[in-house]
Amino acid sequence: MNFPEYSIADWHKLAARELKTRDLSDLTWNTPEGIAIKPLYTAEDLAELEHLSTLPGLPPYPRGPRATMYAGRPWTLRQYAGFSTAEESNKFYRDNLKSGQTGLSVAFDLPTHRGYDSDHDRVVGDVGKAGVAIDSVEDMKILFDRIPLDKISVSMTMNGAVLPVLAMFIVAGEEQGVQQDALAGTLQNDILKEFMVRNTYIYPPEPSMRIVADIIKHTASCMPKFNPISISGYHMQEAGATCVQELAYTIADGIEYVQAALSTGMKVDDFAPRLSFFFCIGMNLFMEVAKLRAARYLWADLMQSRFAPQNPASLMLRTHCQTSGVSLTSHSPYNNIVRTTIEALAAVLGGTQSLHTNSFDEALALPTEFSARIARNTQLILREESGLSKVVDPLAGSYYVESLTGSMIAEARKLIDEVDALGGMTRAVEAGMPKQRIEASAAKRQARLDSGEEAIVGVNRFASDSEENIELLEVDNQAVRESQLARLAEVRATRNEDRCQSALNKLSERAASGDWGLVQLTVEAARARATVGEITAALGREFGQHRARPQAISGVYGNEVSSHDDVAAIRQRVDGFVKSYRRRPRALIAKVGQDGHDRGARVIATAYADFGFEVDIGALFQTPAEVVRQALDNDVHLVGISTQAGGHKTLVPQVVEGLRAQGADNIVVICGGVVPPNDVGLLEARGVSAVYGPGTRILDTIPQVLDMIEHRLQQA
Amino acid sequence: MNFPEYSIADWHKLAARELKTRDLSDLTWNTPEGIAIKPLYTAEDLAELEHLSTLPGLPPYPRGPRATMYAGRPWTLRQYAGFSTAEESNKFYRDNLKSGQTGLSVAFDLPTHRGYDSDHDRVVGDVGKAGVAIDSVEDMKILFDRIPLDKISVSMTMNGAVLPVLAMFIVAGEEQGVQQDALAGTLQNDILKEFMVRNTYIYPPEPSMRIVADIIKHTASCMPKFNPISISGYHMQEAGATCVQELAYTIADGIEYVQAALSTGMKVDDFAPRLSFFFCIGMNLFMEVAKLRAARYLWADLMQSRFAPQNPASLMLRTHCQTSGVSLTSHSPYNNIVRTTIEALAAVLGGTQSLHTNSFDEALALPTEFSARIARNTQLILREESGLSKVVDPLAGSYYVESLTGSMIAEARKLIDEVDALGGMTRAVEAGMPKQRIEASAAKRQARLDSGEEAIVGVNRFASDSEENIELLEVDNQAVRESQLARLAEVRATRNEDRCQSALNKLSERAASGDWGLVQLTVEAARARATVGEITAALGREFGQHRARPQAISGVYGNEVSSHDDVAAIRQRVDGFVKSYRRRPRALIAKVGQDGHDRGARVIATAYADFGFEVDIGALFQTPAEVVRQALDNDVHLVGISTQAGGHKTLVPQVVEGLRAQGADNIVVICGGVVPPNDVGLLEARGVSAVYGPGTRILDTIPQVLDMIEHRLQQA
Repeated sequence: MNFPEYSIADWHKLAARELKTRDLSDLTWNTPEGIAIKPLYTAEDLAELEHLSTLPGLPPYPRGPRATMYAGRPWTLRQYAGFSTAEESNKFYRDNLKSGQTGLSVAFDLPTHRGYDSDHDRVVGDVGKAGVAIDSVEDMKILFDRIPLDKISVSMTMNGAVLPVLAMFIVAGEEQGVQQDALAGTLQNDILKEFMVRNTYIYPPEPSMRIVADIIKHTASCMPKFNPISISGYHMQEAGATCVQELAYTIADGIEYVQAALSTGMKVDDFAPRLSFFFCIGMNLFMEVAKLRAARYLWADLMQSRFAPQNPASLMLRTHCQTSGVSLTSHSPYNNIVRTTIEALAAVLGGTQSLHTNSFDEALALPTEFSARIARNTQLILREESGLSKVVDPLAGSYYVESLTGSMIAEARKLIDEVDALGGMTRAVEAGMPKQRIEASAAKRQARLDSGEEAIVGVNRFASDSEENIELLEVDNQAVRESQLARLAEVRATRNEDRCQSALNKLSERAASGDWGLVQLTVEAARARATVGEITAALGREFGQHRARPQAISGVYGNEVSSHDDVAAIRQRVDGFVKSYRRRPRALIAKVGQDGHDRGARVIATAYADFGFEVDIGALFQTPAEVVRQALDNDVHLVGISTQAGGHKTLVPQVVEGLRAQGADNIVVICGGVVPPNDVGLLEARGVSAVYGPGTRILDTIPQVLDMIEHRLQQA
Repeated sequence: MNFPEYSIADWHKLAARELKTRDLSDLTWNTPEGIAIKPLYTAEDLAELEHLSTLPGLPPYPRGPRATMYAGRPWTLRQYAGFSTAEESNKFYRDNLKSGQTGLSVAFDLPTHRGYDSDHDRVVGDVGKAGVAIDSVEDMKILFDRIPLDKISVSMTMNGAVLPVLAMFIVAGEEQGVQQDALAGTLQNDILKEFMVRNTYIYPPEPSMRIVADIIKHTASCMPKFNPISISGYHMQEAGATCVQELAYTIADGIEYVQAALSTGMKVDDFAPRLSFFFCIGMNLFMEVAKLRAARYLWADLMQSRFAPQNPASLMLRTHCQTSGVSLTSHSPYNNIVRTTIEALAAVLGGTQSLHTNSFDEALALPTEFSARIARNTQLILREESGLSKVVDPLAGSYYVESLTGSMIAEARKLIDEVDALGGMTRAVEAGMPKQRIEASAAKRQARLDSGEEAIVGVNRFASDSEENIELLEVDNQAVRESQLARLAEVRATRNEDRCQSALNKLSERAASGDWGLVQLTVEAARARATVGEITAALGREFGQHRARPQAISGVYGNEVSSHDDVAAIRQRVDGFVKSYRRRPRALIAKVGQDGHDRGARVIATAYADFGFEVDIGALFQTPAEVVRQALDNDVHLVGISTQAGGHKTLVPQVVEGLRAQGADNIVVICGGVVPPNDVGLLEARGVSAVYGPGTRILDTIPQVLDMIEHRLQQA
């Protein structure tokens, strides 16, 4: 049947009629990425897209790195997990492999990340929380007991203590009878983004980059099946970056690592095929699909134009993805199963090579066996039941998705040009530029949520009266620490001490010399049962420690919420305080322990400052005693502790008690972040005045906090 | 940067290399719909697609019925719900409207569907199960108490007792002060598919079609905001239809309803703009998206070519969708949240006008408040957080999706041509053709699952050892029935009996006369407080009752599983039985009560027959006593009762007791279908030998059942 031919003008007329008094331009969505998304895309939007008309498996790869993609072989189901002791984690891994998981991904605890042994006195609250504690090869061997390392690929999220962890992995394989050339897997080893957002660095940028290059050089010659680096945008999006920022800074990081590797004397084709990537997949479905497609194109394009490799695999971006943690809510946690499904779908439609799906309870605690199963099943259902894996890059050709892919490429190029103008990513990181940009995005997003412009179901919209009670996993931090201490003592008692010290000395010397070959010498030290802490210290003697200078952004949050109804009243409330007490309310926003996730702390700091508080931002990795000292020195009214990694039960009460011991009972202590509901009462009983979970509207907390402060001041 | 131009030949070469020994043709997916899906689609696949280059809101509408779609106004979140009494359902509706739902959808109990009052002795086990019991206007008024019927649109799933239910809705509105021309909503009123699959018919096809036409005629002149029919493929897919069968038979049903409405003397444009549709959304994501797009195109095309309407709205297919119930599993029920999310996403990407998302516990029982909230939140999260609603028909242009849309159109046309050749859908239904086709698809699917060719996570693959305990809703059937009986008695005691009987008599006379106007007269009867049962009986005096003749298909299941490992052993086991007892095992597969969902029963029947059982299929809507009589008459070894609607606790033990009372203890009784885990022990304690839930592999049950039969025979 033939229908009349309609023109776009007919559509405009009809749209106007449907919208009545609204203007069509109201339907354009200006995303946080700065992309204007129209309500309608047609074939006309495909004109002039440079990435179009390409084929999967062939450069420049927007449709995927392999010709047959999932139709030939599905993505790898790789769940990131690890907690408490090596024994516990090992059991968990083996269960998961039996239940359909196809690769491992190890989460280490924060002391291991930061290069401390479990017996170090700065890490008492952190051992075995948020990951497995590894002190020596003995732990690593237990971690992979009865897991054949020549068959199962292992991804390790490690960026700080990369040398000892990689070395211990190699030695664990060796003592299992698997030589390093047979080991498959990935080391995250992306230190640049740690300086930007995640903060599990140890040494300053320059020696850190040297270690990265050394590892790339080592794996290129000795570990052909191992990815020496996973260039990670994940933590940027988690810290508040837009999709374009995540994309651009990750690609720019990648280019910087290529430069570093070239400086070791290798050719680009020696190592580029084994560079791998890691992206976060948030809730904006098509944006995430377009991001992955754009990432592949951009990488191929930049690699080709800057380094002209001969091997097409050097142009090929292969990536792991993880669904977004920050998109999950502690309210109505079962809603998170829905969110994770949408995000997993986006990752698959975008063509990821492997995927981690978050568990629905991760905004509250570490996953339980049950929640981890649902997360794994999310991928299995997508793979087995939805028909998704039958067709390569199924959205190719979509007017909207292709146009959005083009926009992502164009917007990311602008940010990459900025980084280039600063002299590359190491320089840009040193200048703090990407960090500030990401923090501004985070503050803007918080403001959009707090003003209701952006919705989160169950949190700032359609909140449920009744809360679900769910069973959460609790790690007995004390027991883990004691078990680690016992094994550490045994390792130290039974090793050949001379051999161990000599290996550590050689490592220090090599660090001082500036020569390559740190990996081999670390393997020697690991074989001799040197610990993570000892190896880190041996290198640290030469490399020194990195300390971040906290710089706050200002004005972003205040500007974004300025038009909201209750803003005037809050400002008045703060002014009232200033009049009564003849000074501004002063807050110390602190992190304690080895937890470097500081998005929350920094957003709170900028928001409070925008509303008239004097705000001190504590240094990262402080002990409770150091926080107490800073609070007293600065004569604050309020200490706000942000905690994301499970150390709150040990560390936060120590701050309260430390203040009391100094007679500073009048200082209010509050706590925010990932705190299981059952722990709230416990913290309050120990003197914490309020606990604010994820999803708290910052604006609401300001008058509450002022009430608490005034109450204390009146008591005093 | 310029890259070399690659050709499809390069892709083929690369694909062959990736596949090693496998052939590229292995990657072609031959779907149950008979569509060959290739691993790769490119722009070449768009050539010659007749539906391409169209715009949303404009004929022939593949991109959606409105120009601005969700960018202008999101889909309606319409959750189907109702249970026990009108009071309980009313409270549930009002809570849901407060929590973000935007339209109502009423589920009636089975006695209401089938036109029985709650006090009828055939429906003792069914009152208030699986929906709300409505006997008179008084119930309907309570159902919508404090719900403004001039503001909230109401969808009513009713196909049997459509006249009394529509009339009572009109009178409830009237007595709330809302005239019928202000009532918005939809009556399902699709009787053809009931004869095909769902079986909640009352009268034979011809008078049933007359009622449909009468209702269309009435609403066209008196209820301009009301959809008189929702032409439903939903129950076809639930009964086992492929997406193409669902699409084709639904469109063919629609054409038949247009013919029926034209026979009342109306012009096509008088009613066609208010015809609405209802599709099921299963797990094959892109197939479902393509189905909705194809449905809109096909409808416009057929309406234009056959009826040449003047109003473009007469060409426009608007649809409600519901996620698939049959795709949900009773094992690991939380997995169903993932499934429903994927299906909801498909419905939205396909451009539905309203959506019901199933609750995760619906393979076990009716939804609880908690599971209903998660289901509602699934839609809210898609709407508010995923960016999906910003762009119209976002997959338009996708090489794969557009090609698949074209294939769906072509395949559906073949089936519609077949129906046309039989003289239209009423004739095809009378001949049993679509029913048989759908049953063959259902048997094939069961065979694919039983042979492991198709996977369901947590059921036939990656099953979990530990099962989740979840809280289920239980309806106190006795209490509901007593409350209904009390109100019925009060209605009958307080009404003007003469006025009521006179209204009923007028209705019978009009039915006999063959004239239109049944709706108005039913409204009169409803005003006079005639009950659903009385109105149904008054019409039934003229129209008679429909009784289906159960015809079984054969061979389909047996052929599909024939190559599987354990088939030979099972055949041998049956042969052994025949040798020992000198007759074949004989089974009665029965349904009891008003539950007409017979997919399960019919699949079991055909599978057992294919494996050498003599199988009797019981008539629908039998009482326990009737099942007992048939079992004795046919001298069966086994009674298998299939139960889907919650009546099992009352009805199944009555069958066991009835057999015992007749001295037939040697007949084994088993039960299958939707049975909450807590009820299994109860049924077993009352003499049921086994309870098989959804996901049971039929092959596994055969030797088990033979063991049970032999055990009884040896005891006797």
